[in-house]
Amino acid sequence: MILIDGKAVSAQIKKEIAEEVLQIKASGGKTPHLAAVLVGHDGGSETYVAAKVKACEEVGFKSSLIRYESDVTETELLACVDRLNKDADIDGFIVQLPLPKHIDEDKIIEAIDYRKDVDGFHPVNVGRRSIGLPCFISATPAGIIELLRRYEIPTQGKNCVVLGRSNIVGKPVASLMLQKAYPGDATVTVCHSRTANLKEICRQADIIIAALGVPEFLKGDMVKEGVVVIDVGTTRVPDASKKSGFRLSGDVKFDEVAPKAAFITPVPGGVGPMTIVSLMRNTLLAGKREIYK
Amino acid sequence: MILIDGKAVSAQIKKEIAEEVLQIKASGGKTPHLAAVLVGHDGGSETYVAAKVKACEEVGFKSSLIRYESDVTETELLACVDRLNKDADIDGFIVQLPLPKHIDEDKIIEAIDYRKDVDGFHPVNVGRRSIGLPCFISATPAGIIELLRRYEIPTQGKNCVVLGRSNIVGKPVASLMLQKAYPGDATVTVCHSRTANLKEICRQADIIIAALGVPEFLKGDMVKEGVVVIDVGTTRVPDASKKSGFRLSGDVKFDEVAPKAAFITPVPGGVGPMTIVSLMRNTLLAGKREIYK
Repeated sequence: MILIDGKAVSAQIKKEIAEEVLQIKASGGKTPHLAAVLVGHDGGSETYVAAKVKACEEVGFKSSLIRYESDVTETELLACVDRLNKDADIDGFIVQLPLPKHIDEDKIIEAIDYRKDVDGFHPVNVGRRSIGLPCFISATPAGIIELLRRYEIPTQGKNCVVLGRSNIVGKPVASLMLQKAYPGDATVTVCHSRTANLKEICRQADIIIAALGVPEFLKGDMVKEGVVVIDVGTTRVPDASKKSGFRLSGDVKFDEVAPKAAFITPVPGGVGPMTIVSLMRNTLLAGKREIYK
Repeated sequence: MILIDGKAVSAQIKKEIAEEVLQIKASGGKTPHLAAVLVGHDGGSETYVAAKVKACEEVGFKSSLIRYESDVTETELLACVDRLNKDADIDGFIVQLPLPKHIDEDKIIEAIDYRKDVDGFHPVNVGRRSIGLPCFISATPAGIIELLRRYEIPTQGKNCVVLGRSNIVGKPVASLMLQKAYPGDATVTVCHSRTANLKEICRQADIIIAALGVPEFLKGDMVKEGVVVIDVGTTRVPDASKKSGFRLSGDVKFDEVAPKAAFITPVPGGVGPMTIVSLMRNTLLAGKREIYK
């Protein structure tokens, strides 16, 4: 069993990006600039945005943080998006989700200039990804694909089972694993809450990407020997032994599944660290105008 | 075995659309107007476009046909798209594919105002379909879904196998069968040329949507009893007994598969007739500004 070390891979990619940024700066190019819009004071969102700002510093990007209280109106937020769209210094920006209930998330996302949509949530980027055209691919699916690539895991013609059909992970990663590309070219099955014979389907899988958000859902008797398991779950479960009062739990019962797996990602330290570097990579691509002019 | 009669269903839908158009006109509303751009003199394209224009007449739409010789430049075609985008009388338009090799199809499609993209090929419509937002769904996948709906075929939790991963059929129909909706909510597997154990996968399917374009690919020993089979294949194969010199062949070996199937579409007369009425329905939705304002 090989433990996929997302922490080490993400550190390596950060180093690669930082080197490229140094070269860009040395040759008089523009420093990539990421802006993040944070609404309210949700604990998770605060943590994620802080980590993104920190990652920008580490790779040498410029970053801007725009904060709003949770009573910001949709109109105010749309005006902010419009300003960021027009700001020539900002190469890419994100609006941290979730947003307060009185704001229409889809409307905000669609207002973002898709050429600056480094989160890859805008319909133009989602559509281009499905068609197979160059685009910003959202962070978690991109991170998963990158892990498969760096560990040189064969995917062509393999049975890949995706557990979960969210717009953030399940659907996009299924779409990527299906494309004529490496990693990709797999036979892809998407399972979800309505799937009847999930155990049987999982037991036939060469690769399982678990993104249900159900702690320890995938048990040892649900996988075959030699399976590749990518665990996207990061649910906070109460844990009195931790200072924070919780620990992160994946969708995989690790102690049961790991002994049967050829490759497996741990939680934490697997997919998680990859998401932020995927955002950094998109910002670099945006800064270089590599995808859109 | 129930034979799914696409000809009858499409005639019924045409009647429904025609009635709605009569009501719109009676109440002083605008007559829906579809424009089609046809480049060159490809036999297939000529036939399809003529059928679309005829269908417009049948349901009471206004239609316009814009023709170019096959030496039209990309710039000229883009200018045409721009004019159609701006023409307030035209509710929706299509550029018949394929285009000559010197023209970038993706560029032409992306130039179309997505609010008039009744073919549903623009990345905004593809992306919104994937996300699950209202959009123009392309004709063949929409026609398949409508057949399942009209025949009240259960789909929730069923194993649906899609053969083929084209941008026109395989990917979009897989995406639709996956959505939380009826028809949909199925466990979806997408197979293609790289799939290793195709026979085994097909034998476990409750629903098979065959869109490979390989005549009589799906044989009797590849399906289980009670399967639902949607045959999207329409390959021209030489046939000396026909006046045209060819006949249309589906992807399914009908005489072997039909006796085992609960429902099956014939070729011709199954999915084929549904595609044009799906385009008519999109044009009606465009005329009524039901999806985009």
